[in-house]
Amino acid sequence: MTQDVAMRSEAGAEPFGLDELRLAGRNRGSLPEALRYDVTPVGLHYLLIHFDVPYVDPASWRLSVGGNVERPVELGLDKLRALPAATIPVTLECAGNGRALLEPRPVSQPWLEEAFGNAEWTGTPLRGVLERAGLRPDTAELVFTGADRGVQDGVAHSYARSLTVQEALREEVMLVYAMNGRPLEPQHGAPVRLLVPGWYGMASVKWLTDIEAVTEPFDGYQQQIAYRYQDDPDDTPGEPVSRMRPRSLMVPPGVPDFQTRGRFVSAGPVELTGRAWSGAGPVQRVEVAIDGRWQDATMHEVLGDYAWRGWSLRWDATPGRHELRCRATDAAGETQPLEPHWNVQGMGNNAAQRLPVLVE
Amino acid sequence: MTQDVAMRSEAGAEPFGLDELRLAGRNRGSLPEALRYDVTPVGLHYLLIHFDVPYVDPASWRLSVGGNVERPVELGLDKLRALPAATIPVTLECAGNGRALLEPRPVSQPWLEEAFGNAEWTGTPLRGVLERAGLRPDTAELVFTGADRGVQDGVAHSYARSLTVQEALREEVMLVYAMNGRPLEPQHGAPVRLLVPGWYGMASVKWLTDIEAVTEPFDGYQQQIAYRYQDDPDDTPGEPVSRMRPRSLMVPPGVPDFQTRGRFVSAGPVELTGRAWSGAGPVQRVEVAIDGRWQDATMHEVLGDYAWRGWSLRWDATPGRHELRCRATDAAGETQPLEPHWNVQGMGNNAAQRLPVLVE
Repeated sequence: MTQDVAMRSEAGAEPFGLDELRLAGRNRGSLPEALRYDVTPVGLHYLLIHFDVPYVDPASWRLSVGGNVERPVELGLDKLRALPAATIPVTLECAGNGRALLEPRPVSQPWLEEAFGNAEWTGTPLRGVLERAGLRPDTAELVFTGADRGVQDGVAHSYARSLTVQEALREEVMLVYAMNGRPLEPQHGAPVRLLVPGWYGMASVKWLTDIEAVTEPFDGYQQQIAYRYQDDPDDTPGEPVSRMRPRSLMVPPGVPDFQTRGRFVSAGPVELTGRAWSGAGPVQRVEVAIDGRWQDATMHEVLGDYAWRGWSLRWDATPGRHELRCRATDAAGETQPLEPHWNVQGMGNNAAQRLPVLVE
Repeated sequence: MTQDVAMRSEAGAEPFGLDELRLAGRNRGSLPEALRYDVTPVGLHYLLIHFDVPYVDPASWRLSVGGNVERPVELGLDKLRALPAATIPVTLECAGNGRALLEPRPVSQPWLEEAFGNAEWTGTPLRGVLERAGLRPDTAELVFTGADRGVQDGVAHSYARSLTVQEALREEVMLVYAMNGRPLEPQHGAPVRLLVPGWYGMASVKWLTDIEAVTEPFDGYQQQIAYRYQDDPDDTPGEPVSRMRPRSLMVPPGVPDFQTRGRFVSAGPVELTGRAWSGAGPVQRVEVAIDGRWQDATMHEVLGDYAWRGWSLRWDATPGRHELRCRATDAAGETQPLEPHWNVQGMGNNAAQRLPVLVE
């Protein structure tokens, strides 16, 4: 019985190794049923932690803003919290979400489709802090460095990413210290992280300690080697990963089988619901396919420029096996593909979700 | 370089399947570096969710206490919160923690050693609620049923577990509605869960809706089939899983490799720290082995009768590869074994941790 409703018959032909399992055991995904909540509970937001969660004492924490600036700035937590504050709902997703559905499978954190969350983030606009420091005119990028440190591909480094000046000055880019109305928990970057709405999560550097203005493009590992779209290993450096591609996911209807996570649904009317998001702003359209026949879902209210949007569709479920799919089209007119586009690092796989169910 | 410090050369000979990966992607482990905190942040506590997190409306939630009682009781959340309250630190661990280190590996949630957490739980003693209902003298057990429902081994059921009257009346067994000073998040059993200090987590039924007094031992799936120690598949029903066996885990020193999670440690003095716990009360002794030579660690203060206890040991790290281990001895005199004891369901594997490190 449970064999009949295995979630994805097309995936998992290749077994997973211990490296992947260790990563899956550390990097916490959200749950598809958590798509119910407008705001993801703190403990249900996805987590991708490159190295270790560092221990940072909020009392002695300082943010240094330096490099190619007129007036280097150092801010403690109290000073940062005294700056003008804003709270916005922002959906974050790991750039590797969907990696484990690619074949052959790139070996890294083996996300299926659970690396998402939508939280209410509170902080101060980065722009104000940069204005205090005064970027010199020839500044090309800002480099953001976190307190987490380790080794990747033999390169020892602290996690660091850059943004162009233009991106960094967007009004919604913030230094955030609270999530869902409470101080950040350690795993979310306490005491302060960067938040880059619209971009995949790698840009929102956690445990932020340094911002450096530089005159040349940043060549750090996480910028130039990791987080690249490469069609083959010789395609270096590849295209940089930036904004989130459109994605829609549904709350799985019915009840699960413990081991296979296959779904059993009672025949009759079923309200299919889900969430959709994109780095190009609120999603305009979601379509749902029942056994390959696409229909438009009803779109729910817009929660914010950078937040996911709910949708729903009534389905009259008839006994038998069915495959449910959904796909989003964003404000830029981009629609999720029906099949994955393979790439070396397994980035940005936003192929439309497949959800087999057994109706009884 | 990264190959040199793979965490456990003895594990993972058998690849993992998609069922196991799906479970690992759902069931969130803690992080070994979270052993630093006396109280585990909500979002870093382990989670084992048998089926789906159910949606329970706190306003309409009711707890029914019935069956073999004098006066059936129904309580809403406000009434429950008005009863005498207590807050205690309690360490919880999944009974399957360590399963993925067994060979051959039982197929279920593939925990390595991350299924732990220590939280401050607030609620009201179960005993008071049972006294209101009045257990009849021939009551054998109390059956606790949650709102989560699904199929396991072909058996459709709501998650349910029982306790004997004697266990249920222990003063520290509680109906809890807050964790670390805040209302439970959905994934931790909101609005109310059972808490059975000292036992593995399966006893602490989440999303609790019904308590039923019964005169015969409960024969539900999660009581009679799952959570059993069986030396071979014919050993039915096996021994029930109950209290936590002693375990000690360390905060991994140094910094990690991203993919293998191997550790790089700088030569010189290193403060090794960790936590130890047991269902038999505060752990009395922790020993640490550096390359097989055991020494006693310094035990830190006792945080509570059912909470983990910190320990530390100074190590003068010398260049080269080393294997670190630790083991706890509890108040009942039980010591962690050095090698796993295999069993069919992969329950209670508390073999002493192994942590290879490379000192540079």
